[in-house]
Amino acid sequence: MSAAPLRVGLLGLGTVGQGVVRILSRNAEEIARRVGRSVVVTHASARDVSRAREVSLAGIEIVADAMQVAAHADVDVIVEAIGGLSPAKELVLAAIERGKPVVTANKALLALQGNAIFEAAQRRGVMVAFEASVGGGIPVIKAIREGLAGNRIEALAGIINGTCNYILTQMSEKGQAFEDALADAQRLGYAEADPTFDVEGVDAAHKLTILASIAFGMPLSFDKVSVEGITKVTPQDIKIARALGYRIKHLGIAKRTQAGVELRAHATLVPEDRLLAKVDGVLNTILLQGNAVGQIGLYGRGAGGDATASAIVADLVDVARALGSDARHHVPALAFQPASMCELSVMALDDVVSAHYLRVTVADEPGVLKAITSILAELDISIEAILQKEPHDGADASVAVITSQVPEHRFNEALKRVRQLPFVRQDISRFRVEYF
Amino acid sequence: MSAAPLRVGLLGLGTVGQGVVRILSRNAEEIARRVGRSVVVTHASARDVSRAREVSLAGIEIVADAMQVAAHADVDVIVEAIGGLSPAKELVLAAIERGKPVVTANKALLALQGNAIFEAAQRRGVMVAFEASVGGGIPVIKAIREGLAGNRIEALAGIINGTCNYILTQMSEKGQAFEDALADAQRLGYAEADPTFDVEGVDAAHKLTILASIAFGMPLSFDKVSVEGITKVTPQDIKIARALGYRIKHLGIAKRTQAGVELRAHATLVPEDRLLAKVDGVLNTILLQGNAVGQIGLYGRGAGGDATASAIVADLVDVARALGSDARHHVPALAFQPASMCELSVMALDDVVSAHYLRVTVADEPGVLKAITSILAELDISIEAILQKEPHDGADASVAVITSQVPEHRFNEALKRVRQLPFVRQDISRFRVEYF
Repeated sequence: MSAAPLRVGLLGLGTVGQGVVRILSRNAEEIARRVGRSVVVTHASARDVSRAREVSLAGIEIVADAMQVAAHADVDVIVEAIGGLSPAKELVLAAIERGKPVVTANKALLALQGNAIFEAAQRRGVMVAFEASVGGGIPVIKAIREGLAGNRIEALAGIINGTCNYILTQMSEKGQAFEDALADAQRLGYAEADPTFDVEGVDAAHKLTILASIAFGMPLSFDKVSVEGITKVTPQDIKIARALGYRIKHLGIAKRTQAGVELRAHATLVPEDRLLAKVDGVLNTILLQGNAVGQIGLYGRGAGGDATASAIVADLVDVARALGSDARHHVPALAFQPASMCELSVMALDDVVSAHYLRVTVADEPGVLKAITSILAELDISIEAILQKEPHDGADASVAVITSQVPEHRFNEALKRVRQLPFVRQDISRFRVEYF
Repeated sequence: MSAAPLRVGLLGLGTVGQGVVRILSRNAEEIARRVGRSVVVTHASARDVSRAREVSLAGIEIVADAMQVAAHADVDVIVEAIGGLSPAKELVLAAIERGKPVVTANKALLALQGNAIFEAAQRRGVMVAFEASVGGGIPVIKAIREGLAGNRIEALAGIINGTCNYILTQMSEKGQAFEDALADAQRLGYAEADPTFDVEGVDAAHKLTILASIAFGMPLSFDKVSVEGITKVTPQDIKIARALGYRIKHLGIAKRTQAGVELRAHATLVPEDRLLAKVDGVLNTILLQGNAVGQIGLYGRGAGGDATASAIVADLVDVARALGSDARHHVPALAFQPASMCELSVMALDDVVSAHYLRVTVADEPGVLKAITSILAELDISIEAILQKEPHDGADASVAVITSQVPEHRFNEALKRVRQLPFVRQDISRFRVEYF
C-alpha cells in the first residue's frame, strides 16, 4: 500500500467508538486490500478514557475535548460516535466547515437536525455518511440509495428497533408482561436504564425519518411521523393475535399513496407467515417495495458495537474512495440531488387507511356480539376475523375483531361508539394490521 | 437537469433488454432526480426487433449488428443483455477498448471469462458493473463489495437459482416428481426449454463463483466449484427430510476454513426453522457471514425482466456518477484492489467437512439397522437423527440417517460399505446438510 493512510478522528469511545477501533484493527488487512490504503484511527476523544477497556488504544492520541479532534488539522475524516443532539451537532458542523467528511450513527441528530447538516455539507462539498444510523450493520441505506436507484420506491416497512422486538418476542414466547420483559431486556443490556426512546417508538421514528427521506426524496420530516410505542401491548393481545394467526411487531412504515405519504411507527399485527412476523429477538429486518424490483428484504443484527462499527467502517471505505474527487461524482447524501428534493404531503393518521385489530373486554351478557358487530356494520366496516372468548375463572369475556381496510377516522368513530356500550369495560386494545 | 443525458447502448432486446428500456422510461424522473442527469437508451441491437413487443422503442436507433452499438462513438455506456459467451465477450471487450463502461447481467461470461474482462477494464480504467448477474434485483453484489467492506467475510450461502427453488418447492408442496415439477416450471416460463444449466447447478455455480470472488478477494475460479444439481432429489427424500425437520434447497456455498476455501453448489438439507428453509418459489435469498456484522440476509425476486433491469439501472446510476472521475476513485470491480487479489486454495470436495443425509431402501430383514449403524460407528460417524420406515403396500422399508459433521471422504467410505450390504437396494440417496 503506497498511498498514505486515511486518518480517522473518532469522537467518543463508548460501545460504538470502541467497535470502530476494534474492527479497523482486526480487519486492517482486508480493509486495506479493498481501499488501496490503510484506514487508521489517529485521534480520539473520550470523557473518561478509563472506561474504554475493550480495545487497545495504542497509537491513538486521546483528548477529552471532542472539538479538538473535530477540528484537528491532521485528521482526514471524523467519526461521530457520541450520540445525542448537542454537542454532536456543533462537532459535526465544525468538521464540515473544515472540509472534513463525517461518518455518524446518530439517527436522532440526523432525524432532527439533518436538513441543516446536509445543507452545510452540500455547500462545502463534503460527504456525510450514515449507514450505521439505521439497521446496525445491515446495509439498508446503501440498498435504498444505490441498490434501488432504478426504482420508484413505493413503500418500506421494518423492524428497526431491536429493544422493542426483543421485548415483544419475550412477551410472546414467555407470556411475560411488558414491564417484566423490559426489566429482562435492561438486565441483558438490550434496553437502556431510561428506555423511553425505544419503547415509546421515538428511536424507530428517527430511523423511519431517515429511510423515508432517502426512499422518497423528501426532506427529513421527523415532526410529521405518527409515533406510538409498545407500552400498550399486553400478553392477552399477543395471545389473541396468535390465535387469529398474527404476531405483534413494532414497525416503522413509510408508504406512498394517492392521498399523500404515510409516515408512522407503531405496534402492528402482521400475519404469521410473513418474514416480518418471523424475525425475533434483537434482529432487525426491513422490507423495501420498488416498482421495478418488487419486494426485497434485508435482515441482521440491528445494534451492538461490532455490527454498528461494520456500517461505520463501510462508510469510511466509501469516504476514502471519494476523497479528492469532485463532489458531483459523490452519491448524494440523501439519495436524490439536493435541488431535486421535494416536500411531500404527509397524511394525518386520521386519513390513513389500514386494517385494525380491536379487543374489548365485556360483561358476559347476551347481545354483546350483536351490538359490536352492528356498530361496525353501521360504519361500513367489514369484519375479516372475529374471536370471542368465554369468561372463565370469574374473568370477563373478551371479543377481538380484525377489520378490513378502513380509514382511521372511521375506525375511531366505531371505537367511540363501542366504548359507550353499557357492557364494555374500560380495557380496550386497538392496533393497526399490515400485510407486507 | 442541465447536464447532458447519459447515452446507453443496449445490446439485446430480449426480456432483460426490454426491461431496461421499460424501467428507464417509466422511472425516468426518479432516476434523473437521483443522478442529476437523465439516462436514456439511444442505441440498441436486436437480431429480430419484431420480437421486442413489450415496450415502446421510439427514439432508439436499432441495428442488427451488436458490434455497431458496442463501438458507437455516440454511446457513453454499454449494457450487455445478450447472454452467452460469444459474441458477448468480444462485444464487452470492444466496448472496454473504446473506453466505454459496461453493465452486464451475464454470470456465465463473468464466471468463465471475467478475469480477462476485468483485467482489460482495469488497464483501460473503465468500470464493468454486474449487480444483475446474481440475485436479480437484490443488491447483493453491492452489499458484499461495499456494505460489508469493513468485514472479513467468513461464509456465504444462498438460494441463487430460482428455477431450482421453484421445482423443489413444487415437489415439496405437491409431492410431485422432479420431471413433473420441471414440466410445470417450463410451462410457466420459470425454466428454459433446455433446463440443463439450471437444474444441474451450473447457473448457481456461475453465480457462486462471482460471489466468492468479491467476498474473499480471489480471482474468479469457476473450475474449482463442486457442482451438483437437483435431478437426484426425489419426493421421498423431501418427505423424509420434512419428517426429520428439514427442507431440501439448492444452495451455493462459499466458506473459509482452516484447510482452505469451500466452493460448492448442491441440493442441501436445511433445518426448517432457518430463513433458507422458508424462502420458497422463484425467490432468491443470500446469507452473508462477516466477522463484524455477524449474519445478514437478503431476499427478493432473483429473475424476471424488471427485477434484473432494476439492478442494471442501479449499475447505470453508479456508472453515470463515476464517469469522468479518476479510476482510483472507483469501487474496484471485484471489491478488492486488483493488486490485492489472492489465489486461495480451494478444497477438494473429499476434504470438505459437513453433516450428511443418507437414505437407503432395504429388504425387510432383521439386523438391517444394526448393520448400517455399525458401519457408521466403525468409521466414527455419529448419528444425529435416524428414521426407519416400515414397508407397506409391498414396498421395501427405508432407513434415513442424518450424521454429525464428518469429512466427505469418510462419509463416502461409509456409503461404499453400506452399498455392499446384501439387503440394501440400489436406490440410495445422499445429500449434504448445512446449518446456516
